[in-house]
Amino acid sequence: MGIDRALLERRLDELHAIGAEPDGGAYRPLYGVAWGTAVERVERWLKDAGLKTRRDAVGNLWGRAEGDGKSIVTGSHIDTVRHGGRLDGALGIVAGLTAVEALLRDKGKPRRPLEVVAICEEEGSRFATGFWGSSAIIGAISTPDTAMTEAMSERGLDPSRIPTAARDDIDTFIELHIEQGAVLASSHLPLAVVSAIVGTAHLEMTVTGQPDHAGTTPMELRHDALAGAAAMVQAVESIAQSLGQPAVATVGKLAVEPDQINVVPGKATFTVDLRHSDLGGRRALEQRIRSLCGTISQERRLGLAIRTLQEKPPVAMHPDVRALLARAAQECGVQATEMVSGAGHDAQVLAARCKVGMLFVPSIGGRSHCPEEATSPEHLLLGTTVLTRALELMAYSAER
Amino acid sequence: MGIDRALLERRLDELHAIGAEPDGGAYRPLYGVAWGTAVERVERWLKDAGLKTRRDAVGNLWGRAEGDGKSIVTGSHIDTVRHGGRLDGALGIVAGLTAVEALLRDKGKPRRPLEVVAICEEEGSRFATGFWGSSAIIGAISTPDTAMTEAMSERGLDPSRIPTAARDDIDTFIELHIEQGAVLASSHLPLAVVSAIVGTAHLEMTVTGQPDHAGTTPMELRHDALAGAAAMVQAVESIAQSLGQPAVATVGKLAVEPDQINVVPGKATFTVDLRHSDLGGRRALEQRIRSLCGTISQERRLGLAIRTLQEKPPVAMHPDVRALLARAAQECGVQATEMVSGAGHDAQVLAARCKVGMLFVPSIGGRSHCPEEATSPEHLLLGTTVLTRALELMAYSAER
Repeated sequence: MGIDRALLERRLDELHAIGAEPDGGAYRPLYGVAWGTAVERVERWLKDAGLKTRRDAVGNLWGRAEGDGKSIVTGSHIDTVRHGGRLDGALGIVAGLTAVEALLRDKGKPRRPLEVVAICEEEGSRFATGFWGSSAIIGAISTPDTAMTEAMSERGLDPSRIPTAARDDIDTFIELHIEQGAVLASSHLPLAVVSAIVGTAHLEMTVTGQPDHAGTTPMELRHDALAGAAAMVQAVESIAQSLGQPAVATVGKLAVEPDQINVVPGKATFTVDLRHSDLGGRRALEQRIRSLCGTISQERRLGLAIRTLQEKPPVAMHPDVRALLARAAQECGVQATEMVSGAGHDAQVLAARCKVGMLFVPSIGGRSHCPEEATSPEHLLLGTTVLTRALELMAYSAER
Repeated sequence: MGIDRALLERRLDELHAIGAEPDGGAYRPLYGVAWGTAVERVERWLKDAGLKTRRDAVGNLWGRAEGDGKSIVTGSHIDTVRHGGRLDGALGIVAGLTAVEALLRDKGKPRRPLEVVAICEEEGSRFATGFWGSSAIIGAISTPDTAMTEAMSERGLDPSRIPTAARDDIDTFIELHIEQGAVLASSHLPLAVVSAIVGTAHLEMTVTGQPDHAGTTPMELRHDALAGAAAMVQAVESIAQSLGQPAVATVGKLAVEPDQINVVPGKATFTVDLRHSDLGGRRALEQRIRSLCGTISQERRLGLAIRTLQEKPPVAMHPDVRALLARAAQECGVQATEMVSGAGHDAQVLAARCKVGMLFVPSIGGRSHCPEEATSPEHLLLGTTVLTRALELMAYSAER
C-alpha cells in the first residue's frame, strides 16, 4: 500500500500554518477563526479523497465511505494548545485521511463503512472543557454554559442540537498520535501500540497561613503559606519518585497571595496532576500525597484544603484492537512495543461506546505542546503505513 | 504637657476613612484622589494648629512654626498600601501635629523652627518607587519616568521643579511609628527607641528547566523548574532560621511558567527579601542563600539567574537622638527598650542629610499592612506624649 510521503508532510505543513503564532507554534482554539479555517481545509481534503462529508452538532467533521454494518473510524482532534506543535492531533487527521484515500484508490469500496473524523476539541484549548468533541459523540454532554453557547452560535452551531451528535454505530476507533514523551525516542523504538491510557486526578491544594511584614516578623513567629506549599511540592515529587514508573505527579500551577516582595505569603494555591495506569496505583499515589501534605500543614500550623478538580480512571485499549494493531505492524515489518499513554486522548472517552486502539510514533526529544514538537519523516510514514494496514484489516477483510 | 487623647483618636479615624476600601482597610496611593483629600485634611489641621503650611515640588506637605537655626522636624508618610491599616504613617503625622499643636499652645514660640511633615510617599503605594518623598527632601531624585510625570501633572505638580524640594536646613527628624511586628507586644513592652533600621536586599531568582507534558514525562527525565524553586524556598527559610535573629528572609512572590495544570513547569521566578541590622550579617545571609540555591540548581540540572533588585545598607539612628528619646521617655515615666526596625522608614533616607531618630509603639498581634492593624489607646497616648516631650527638649530648650 503506497502512502505518498510528500503529500503527508505537505498536508501537515498546511494545517500547521493555520493559526500560526508570531512567536512560534500554532493556536487553533475551539470555534475560533483558525479552527474554522482548518476545518474547511480538512473538509476539502476529505471530499477530494472521495469521502462524503458532514459536520455534526458540535462541529466534529466526518468523512465517510459507505459499507455494511458499524463503522471503522480513524482520526484525531483539530484544536491545539497555545504555541502548539505540528503533529499533536493534526497527525491523526492527516494520516487517517491519507490512509483512507490510499485504500479507496487501491482497494475500492470497503466492506464496512470507513470514516475519518476531525474531532472539534480535545485540548481544553479555549474553555474549561477537554474531550468536548468525543463527549458529544458518546452523548455525554448536557447543557453548555453561556460562553460555550455564544461561541457555538458564532460558528452557526445550535446548542440545542448537541444530542444529535451522539453515535451508536461505531464499531472501532483507532488513532495514530505522537507519543508526546521520550520513552520511544530514548529506547530507539519506532512504534508503539497503546495498552492503556493512564488515570488522572487533578487536585487543587490551598494552603493558608498569615500574611505578615517580611521585615518585622521573626522567622519563628511566621505562618508562611508559601514555605509550607514549597515543602508540599517537594513531597509530591518525592512520593512519585519513590513509587516509580508509571506513577507521575506534577505541580504545574502555583499562585501566592498577596504576592508582594515584602509580605510573608498568607495563602498559596497549587495544583497536583497525578497519573497511573492502574486505578489502585493512582489511588495509592493520591492517598500518600494527601497524607504527607496534611502532616506538613499540621507541623507548620497552616490550613490545608484539598479539592478534587477532575478524576478520570485509567482506560484499557480493547484487546482485539491491540492485537490487530500489533499484527498490522508486524505485516509492515515492525515489531511494535506496547506502552501506557501518560497523556489523555479521545480514545479514553470513546471507549465507553466502541472498541478503541491507538498507535504512537516517537516524539523527538519527547517534546510536545510546543513549537519544537517533531517526529522524523520515517516514523511519520511508518505510523501512517501501519494505520493504513490496520484500517484495511478492519474495513476490507471478511475475517471479522 | 496635655495631649488630647480623644482628638488624637478622632483625627486617626478621620484620616483612615479617606480612601476606605469596601473590603476593609484604606488605600491612598500616591497622587490619587484619596491621597489628595488626605493632604487637604492634614493641611487644614496644620493651619488650625497655627502652623504656616506649604507643599513642596513632589507634594510633601510642611507645617512650620518659625524659630532660629535649623529645623526640628517630625511626621511620617501619608500614602498607604492596599487594604492599609489605621496607623502606618498616619500615626506619625497625627501624633506630630497634635504634639506641636500642644507645644505651641502651652509653650509658645519655639527657639528653633519646629515643623510637621506629611511625606507624600514611602510605601511604593502606586509606582515602583518607595521613599519618593524623603528622596526628594535629600535631593536624590533624578528625572521621573513618564507614568510618574503624568501622575504629578494631574495633581498640578511640575516635575521640573523636583530639585527645589531638597532641604539642607533640617537639624533633626524624629518619627513616631507602630512597630509592625510582635516584638513589643509579645514582651509586654510599651515603647521602643529604634537603634537601627535593617539593611534589606531584594533578589529575583529565575529558575529555568524544561516544560514537558505532565503525563508522558517520567519523573527521572524531568527538569522541573518549580520543584527546584520549591527546594530553594525551603533553603531560604532554613538558612534564615539557622542564622537566628535578627536575620529574616522571605520569599514573597513566586510565578510559574507556563502555569498549566498538566505541564511540568519550565520556569519559576521568585523574590527573596533579606534583612539584617548588621551589614556583615546581611551579606552572610545573602551569600549562604546564593550558594545553596546554586547547589540545588546544579544538582537538578536547572538554570539559575540571580538579579539584585534593591540593596539598602542598615542605617543606624543618630546616638544623640537615641539618647534624647530615651530621656524623654524616662521623663514621661517609661523605660524605653531599644530595638532594630525590621521595616524600612523615611528616617533611613533622611539620615543622609540630618540627625534621625524613631519611636515605636506596640502593634497588637504584630499585625500591620492590613485592616486589623491596631495599637491600644494607652500606647498611642504614651507614644505621642513622649514624642511631645522630645520635641520640647529639642526645639524649646537652650541646652542644644
